[in-house]
Amino acid sequence: MSYELFYWPTIQGRGEFVRLALEEAGAGYVDVARQPGGMQKMMAALGSDLHPPFAPPFLKADGLTIGQSANILLYLGQRHQLAPGDEAGRLWTHQLQLTIGDLVAEAHDTHHPIASSLYYEDQKPEAKRRAADFTAGRMPKFLGYFSRVLGERDTLVGDRLTYADLSLFQVIAGLRYAFPKAMARIESKLSNLGRLHDRVAARPNIAAYLASPRRLPFNEEGIFRRYPELEG
Amino acid sequence: MSYELFYWPTIQGRGEFVRLALEEAGAGYVDVARQPGGMQKMMAALGSDLHPPFAPPFLKADGLTIGQSANILLYLGQRHQLAPGDEAGRLWTHQLQLTIGDLVAEAHDTHHPIASSLYYEDQKPEAKRRAADFTAGRMPKFLGYFSRVLGERDTLVGDRLTYADLSLFQVIAGLRYAFPKAMARIESKLSNLGRLHDRVAARPNIAAYLASPRRLPFNEEGIFRRYPELEG
Repeated sequence: MSYELFYWPTIQGRGEFVRLALEEAGAGYVDVARQPGGMQKMMAALGSDLHPPFAPPFLKADGLTIGQSANILLYLGQRHQLAPGDEAGRLWTHQLQLTIGDLVAEAHDTHHPIASSLYYEDQKPEAKRRAADFTAGRMPKFLGYFSRVLGERDTLVGDRLTYADLSLFQVIAGLRYAFPKAMARIESKLSNLGRLHDRVAARPNIAAYLASPRRLPFNEEGIFRRYPELEG
Repeated sequence: MSYELFYWPTIQGRGEFVRLALEEAGAGYVDVARQPGGMQKMMAALGSDLHPPFAPPFLKADGLTIGQSANILLYLGQRHQLAPGDEAGRLWTHQLQLTIGDLVAEAHDTHHPIASSLYYEDQKPEAKRRAADFTAGRMPKFLGYFSRVLGERDTLVGDRLTYADLSLFQVIAGLRYAFPKAMARIESKLSNLGRLHDRVAARPNIAAYLASPRRLPFNEEGIFRRYPELEG
């Protein structure tokens, strides 16, 4: 079974949460928009009449087209044992993922508080205000929450790795990239987050992925951007 | 089976998407924070150690505590036939709900583009810029998408009512309240949205709910706020 993942070809972005799940599962997949002619295929799929996604990422699998990163993970989690099989565990894992998604959206808006359709340069003073609130208030609140949920265990949900762990790894890496000073301050008090990050990074499939050209670097087109002026 | 819904007691907010599903299903539920002593119960649950929600709304049911409005609807959809039973239909309905959630978050940020922790009055110029982009760009894009998905059918998914229809009803009502001019302009081109709104509003359980004191009015503490200055 081979999947087709559709996402912007030059950024990690929201597609990265799906890539990490596919890589951990060792699932065969094509990152379509990074292939020759792939962008045209992606734009055509967005314009389709049957169950069109609103935006990338989306996944084609088994005749289905599945959009929204958390929804894709809900699907992959069951197929690849990246979530508990029982309803309670499945819902709890998904709840954590949706909360991670909220954090990701807020991280994005630190550099685009006014409009995604405008350049960062057109909203810099506003970005500075929003980033200050994010690093002082929202970031510690979200990360404190995940640290509390994780506690002394190895994984967020019970004693098994789930897609929520992979996603939290990605968020920790992204926030370290975007806000190194704030993140160092926060992590000094929430040391279990760094240990989770390192455990995920050391998993064989993930380590191989991170070392491969399939892993795009963080950059200033993605969700997590390093603009030093936003750290005050 | 009686549910306990936990949400802020003075606003529709994100809790309203859950209330509408419970009401349509005719499910017995207590809106806990609107009862005497209920706010204390809600704050205690947020601080619990086992599967704490990050924020309201959350639902207690069957020994579970389920957070994130879209996740609660995923659960209720299966229990009360408010979503298809097959995997493909379930995922598609959830995908639409998550996209509605994205629209709701952007609608919220029109009046709080800098920080939820600040008053609207402390971010008015920024709110004006963000609202201008929202009403000119994002709102027509999202609503055009849902109009296209709906087409000439009575409901978004197949030929059955789902929680996504209830949520889209709520979004249409909210955007009419917050941005009456922009909404009139957009709806003049997307007339199937108004028909969906009216069909949902006319369903016996929903009509009874909307006429009851259980339905809180829109106000300037919720997600959809009428600030005429944001319509330019």
